[in-house]
Amino acid sequence: MEIICIGNELLIGKISNTNAQWMSRRATFLGLTVARITVVRDEVEEISTVIREALQRKPRFIVTTGGLGPTFDDKTLQGLSRALKRKLEVNQEALRMIQEKYNAYSMNNRIENRELTPSRIKMATIPEETKPVPNPVGTAPAVLAETETTVIILLPGVPSEMEAIFDETVAPMLRKAANNISFYEKRIYVDKILESTIAPIIDQVMLDNPSVYIKSHPRGVESKPHLEIHLSLRASEIEKPEEKLEKAATQLARLTAEQGGEVSRDPI
Amino acid sequence: MEIICIGNELLIGKISNTNAQWMSRRATFLGLTVARITVVRDEVEEISTVIREALQRKPRFIVTTGGLGPTFDDKTLQGLSRALKRKLEVNQEALRMIQEKYNAYSMNNRIENRELTPSRIKMATIPEETKPVPNPVGTAPAVLAETETTVIILLPGVPSEMEAIFDETVAPMLRKAANNISFYEKRIYVDKILESTIAPIIDQVMLDNPSVYIKSHPRGVESKPHLEIHLSLRASEIEKPEEKLEKAATQLARLTAEQGGEVSRDPI
Repeated sequence: MEIICIGNELLIGKISNTNAQWMSRRATFLGLTVARITVVRDEVEEISTVIREALQRKPRFIVTTGGLGPTFDDKTLQGLSRALKRKLEVNQEALRMIQEKYNAYSMNNRIENRELTPSRIKMATIPEETKPVPNPVGTAPAVLAETETTVIILLPGVPSEMEAIFDETVAPMLRKAANNISFYEKRIYVDKILESTIAPIIDQVMLDNPSVYIKSHPRGVESKPHLEIHLSLRASEIEKPEEKLEKAATQLARLTAEQGGEVSRDPI
Repeated sequence: MEIICIGNELLIGKISNTNAQWMSRRATFLGLTVARITVVRDEVEEISTVIREALQRKPRFIVTTGGLGPTFDDKTLQGLSRALKRKLEVNQEALRMIQEKYNAYSMNNRIENRELTPSRIKMATIPEETKPVPNPVGTAPAVLAETETTVIILLPGVPSEMEAIFDETVAPMLRKAANNISFYEKRIYVDKILESTIAPIIDQVMLDNPSVYIKSHPRGVESKPHLEIHLSLRASEIEKPEEKLEKAATQLARLTAEQGGEVSRDPI
């Protein structure tokens, strides 16, 4: 699967891309592999290009965040329209979802009118042959599109809305596609040994445990080395993933200690 | 400019991509426009493809983070080698930089030998016609490559190392390229008005202030709307950017208040 994050605020470093991390984490534990994350600015041509490029790689899922709101710079629907060559049209179901939201806001706040202004109708103007998806938290509906190879889901950029729609609508689709595969991980920590010294040990342990992926992350400074070693595995429960991780971690800890490293295990 | 972040840990959501945010922020204020951020996993073919795709867009700069260390999964040098079709070779200057580091570690810690093992030589094995760049904080040198259109800089993924090399070596290049252009911004906050209500106001203010970019960020929930309005501008000092931002912010505040919004300005 691929994630596309749309928004100038990410490219000027105004905010951290917490959406990408949140979604990658969720998707990974649902059994999917996130192959790429792309961040682009609020420009129709850019958004369209990035979606088209991603489609050429034929991932099972493309999930985008951002650009579904009412302002001029919310351009994801136009971008998808151009990428798929499907015309934008006012979707009656989306319009109904949006009207209901403004009715509720109007009742609860009495500070706004419920009129469907052009800015509001914009959020219901989605590419033909796509479906609006309810937003349980905010106003802008998410949008679901399918091509021969790929399911494309457009989510809002506001984290609470993105997360709610992901959990309600996207997660069940991913879980089904993952077909019982899940993600397992384990960490060990090593002091008093440099990353370059542990490198051949990792090679050896991965050779002896071919299903386990091992990656070292330097956390200290090189004058006082502290390494986090992350072991992970994609497998179904039946393949005994926990046992496989434990076997690799034990071997890694033993070989590292032999080279003078001080090993500590993940606190449970 | 484009940023490419290399590392499985970003695609499994293990860590937040703080490097991308830090670098985008720095580059933006140095006057550059970050057009795209791409995150890919630790695979030579993937890294090479992403670099090649970025080169086709001919940005002035491509800066990568991650994948320069001594372990098997540090594959950025191989990726660049393949992308540029320049063979990997042991670079004597890089080797000298690395040897000096291990001499120092060995003296200071007495826990490691200073021998140049294959894992350590790997960090000095860089594509031909590229240059190693000193790493003031860690071991792996950064790498500088040039094509006809683009300067490519490979930085380590460890934030302290990435930031130190960026400030020492990359920032001066970007500043020079930006040619006195800098980035200016201002925020105002609006309560009691929905984003869809403020949308046409933003259109109007941008029309009247064509050099100013305005983006609204919903921060509350829609039942209790709170909006951050971000105004920004790329210009040289001589174009009076602060005045232009102030004029747009003042107009925006006035029109928003007329619609019932409660406006507060950025605390100074």
